[in-house]
Amino acid sequence: MLPIPALPGLMMQDQLLVSALIRHADRHHGEAQIVSRRSEGDLHRYSYRDCHRRARQLAQALTTLGVIAGERVGTLAWNGYRHLELYYAVSGYGGVLHTINPRLHVEQLTWMVNHAEDAVVCFDLGMLPLVKAIAGQCPTVRHWIAMADAAAMPPSPPGVSLLCYETLLQAQSGDFLWPELDERCAATLCYTSGTTGNPKGVLYSHRSSILHAYAGALPDALNVGSADVILPVVPMFHVNAWAIPYMATMVGAKLVLPGPQLDGASIYQLLEQEKVSYSAGVPTVWQGLLAHVETHGLKFSSMRRTLIGGSACPPAMIHTFQTRYGISVLHGWGMTELSPLGTVCTPKAKHVGLPEAQIEAVKCKQGRSLYGIDMRIVDEAGQELPWDGKLSGDLQVRGHWVIREYFKGDGGDPLQNGWFPTGDVATIDADGFMQITDRSKDVIKSGGEWISSIDIENIAMAHPAVAMAACIATADAKWDERPLLVVVLKPGAAATREELLLHYAGKVAKWWIPDDVVFVDSIPLGATGKMLKNRLRERFGNRQLPGG
Amino acid sequence: MLPIPALPGLMMQDQLLVSALIRHADRHHGEAQIVSRRSEGDLHRYSYRDCHRRARQLAQALTTLGVIAGERVGTLAWNGYRHLELYYAVSGYGGVLHTINPRLHVEQLTWMVNHAEDAVVCFDLGMLPLVKAIAGQCPTVRHWIAMADAAAMPPSPPGVSLLCYETLLQAQSGDFLWPELDERCAATLCYTSGTTGNPKGVLYSHRSSILHAYAGALPDALNVGSADVILPVVPMFHVNAWAIPYMATMVGAKLVLPGPQLDGASIYQLLEQEKVSYSAGVPTVWQGLLAHVETHGLKFSSMRRTLIGGSACPPAMIHTFQTRYGISVLHGWGMTELSPLGTVCTPKAKHVGLPEAQIEAVKCKQGRSLYGIDMRIVDEAGQELPWDGKLSGDLQVRGHWVIREYFKGDGGDPLQNGWFPTGDVATIDADGFMQITDRSKDVIKSGGEWISSIDIENIAMAHPAVAMAACIATADAKWDERPLLVVVLKPGAAATREELLLHYAGKVAKWWIPDDVVFVDSIPLGATGKMLKNRLRERFGNRQLPGG
Repeated sequence: MLPIPALPGLMMQDQLLVSALIRHADRHHGEAQIVSRRSEGDLHRYSYRDCHRRARQLAQALTTLGVIAGERVGTLAWNGYRHLELYYAVSGYGGVLHTINPRLHVEQLTWMVNHAEDAVVCFDLGMLPLVKAIAGQCPTVRHWIAMADAAAMPPSPPGVSLLCYETLLQAQSGDFLWPELDERCAATLCYTSGTTGNPKGVLYSHRSSILHAYAGALPDALNVGSADVILPVVPMFHVNAWAIPYMATMVGAKLVLPGPQLDGASIYQLLEQEKVSYSAGVPTVWQGLLAHVETHGLKFSSMRRTLIGGSACPPAMIHTFQTRYGISVLHGWGMTELSPLGTVCTPKAKHVGLPEAQIEAVKCKQGRSLYGIDMRIVDEAGQELPWDGKLSGDLQVRGHWVIREYFKGDGGDPLQNGWFPTGDVATIDADGFMQITDRSKDVIKSGGEWISSIDIENIAMAHPAVAMAACIATADAKWDERPLLVVVLKPGAAATREELLLHYAGKVAKWWIPDDVVFVDSIPLGATGKMLKNRLRERFGNRQLPGG
Repeated sequence: MLPIPALPGLMMQDQLLVSALIRHADRHHGEAQIVSRRSEGDLHRYSYRDCHRRARQLAQALTTLGVIAGERVGTLAWNGYRHLELYYAVSGYGGVLHTINPRLHVEQLTWMVNHAEDAVVCFDLGMLPLVKAIAGQCPTVRHWIAMADAAAMPPSPPGVSLLCYETLLQAQSGDFLWPELDERCAATLCYTSGTTGNPKGVLYSHRSSILHAYAGALPDALNVGSADVILPVVPMFHVNAWAIPYMATMVGAKLVLPGPQLDGASIYQLLEQEKVSYSAGVPTVWQGLLAHVETHGLKFSSMRRTLIGGSACPPAMIHTFQTRYGISVLHGWGMTELSPLGTVCTPKAKHVGLPEAQIEAVKCKQGRSLYGIDMRIVDEAGQELPWDGKLSGDLQVRGHWVIREYFKGDGGDPLQNGWFPTGDVATIDADGFMQITDRSKDVIKSGGEWISSIDIENIAMAHPAVAMAACIATADAKWDERPLLVVVLKPGAAATREELLLHYAGKVAKWWIPDDVVFVDSIPLGATGKMLKNRLRERFGNRQLPGG
């Protein structure tokens, strides 16, 4: 605690609270719409005013169930209006919303619910098999709430007495005042889905969430205004859908929540029907959408912008969105430990009026620090490196919405000298544009020099026959490591090893060119859509390369 | 102080500080430009990186002079780079920047410096006559610093030993780390220039200033990004130039600071030469600019947006900017007690695609609450009134950057039941758009009903012969009060009393039409450009009206 200031300012000092978002939206954007595709397949429509009323009913219901401030409420749910009500009800009354990624293994799910000590778990009906699989191993959970109407309630599995979300709400008046919590309280909990070791819990505070939403909605960041119609494809169980629900509520933008159907055809239909202007998701989701649109010769009639993050967006995808469909790609970078936004790539004044190709080159970078985040790159000795756009080093960040400690301390001390080491390797140019060159564990160390696996993948992705590409290190007696390209071809497309290797000529230094190519039917993806390169390394890492 | 939270969040908890603005700009927008017209008439150019270095030198110099945390440093200065350095140096080291409006009477200036107990006063050379007039009556001021080069230093007036700003800076290395202050510290002090009674001091905190800048820069508020080139005509001594310097620094936008020359020709030249895209000021300033542009048949080649606030912007001015010059007018409302932004008028999704005339009608309102501000209208009994766009009541606000107490408590308790009564009378429509109908002291009470003086003025201002118009109440035996229109005609233009009164036919209810018109050479303006209607009431308030 800092000492009392010499001369205190004399402005009001309300706490920065998540509940204030939905209260403000009710009062100032009460009529703005929230549209949800439900598990049942139909569309549900209501307003921020309705959402606020139901969130207060839900807060009353949780209080009635004996859930107290500080307790965790888990969710197993897709993007939808009931999930949004949980965002505001749980954090609002002083509880901690723990969003759980249903794509994880049952063992990991069980581990997380137990580590979080969830008092309640709310779930979409489609998650019932998961609930059945874990309920017996989760002793802290006092209530399992099915997010459904009474009429749709399934029979309770053995040993569990399911509660009905709608029945709970109907019993409450909604006449509830949000408590004036301390802004330093935990509001939400999200676990990182590391590929090794146990997941680590990140405990966001009300303060960090509101500051992140302010900064994230700024014109040079996500640029979110009340006239936007936003469809977050990124799931609400994944770092709060990049906090887009908070930002949309902050400014009263129409939200379109796609439910469980995330295939290209379903997303496309929703984009068109609801006149979505703005969407957000990981590159692998957009591949499905673009494939659908290309195959059927379609156009986007309302979408103008898309935020792409989670992993580096291939330049070829940025180019396709921009030139073929007139959609501006906003490239971003973040992490669970950053709430998640660290940088967004918005051109500066100096780029205005440049030829499109040069602006596109800028947009391939992950971009500039949001106000409230500082970053730096350091060498192996921890010395700060210059910002010349060439030297790469370990990326470190700090700021108002960066982690200080993992939940319960499990996961070790996340900081080094007050900075959070991201595990990414990056360059930063003189204008402050950061570009990820690799994950530090994916970088290929060949003859004492580094090869960027992302660069190699991006070039492969620009080949017309390639649907997905991963570049991994294989052991090499002479050079220590050498790059191997793992490729999934587009349906019906053909390309030879030689053709793909020739495609690198003139694009990178000769010694960066992969030594070999292997063709596979699919590349394994993690629970958040990232390529699981460790699996590929297990499979191909000791492969004998032609030159070796 | 709130109790320790049940479960504290685990994110970093840096303080929200004004010094972080300039440090961030240095690191992430170091090359962005700040252009200033100096008192000498020439243009000065440098970068945010230069500004940061000099602000640190200045903080060192102030420390060397023995100025301690919490002490007030006054400024008597126009918009310029040295004033900006003072913004960051004084608040940054823990002092309180007290910006003084040089247009006030010498008695008021003296009163303010003494009430603030300024330890130092920094002044532009053009303010030397004021310094000479007040220095003898300001016993708390230990140093008077002339913001000038050594070569330009004037001789010290009797009894005062002037210090030279540039000499002080040159003695310092700039090797200074901003202290980690408590964000609740006072950062700046600004006095309201009430027309009655003593000025009242508003003491902004670091926290309130940063939250205000975040919210104010959002797309639906001032929409400030790094590609903007911003010229605040609104003075830096007037509520921190509406906090535009903070917002520009936050995002690294080019700033153009116009110095003392605020006539139409000077402003126009700067707008064109520096390719300004965005400007901000009170309506009376834009009248001078528009008159210059119209008289000389000029165009605006780069300006696309202008923020107008301080007093209600006449619809005729909005229309001229929009249709004749293609400049989008952003109408805003604020007060010194609000840091100052309360509302900004940005259309919602429902307005997109409406005919221009309908959008213009929306833009004549003062707009919607920024995120972080709540507002309401109440009747004389303090009961909240509905938002129907018709019923008007006393406007009250609360939020993160609204006053809690006046400095030293002088000025009374500013709050009523936790809300700040603004002294404005307003309507709020169902979409949350607020429109000021009057100042409560300017409203005309005729036969028990209210007449909006602003409505009457706006209609007069739309007449081609009228340069400026004020509507005031005159005493009336039968109706209690009746409206009188006070008019300044444009140079060379002519209009009769009858013609102007006929101009109201069909535009307002018959009983709203003024009973008489008086023509004057000028209407007195206050220190911030607002019409001084109390002076007009003193002069004309007991005038015998034709019908009376």
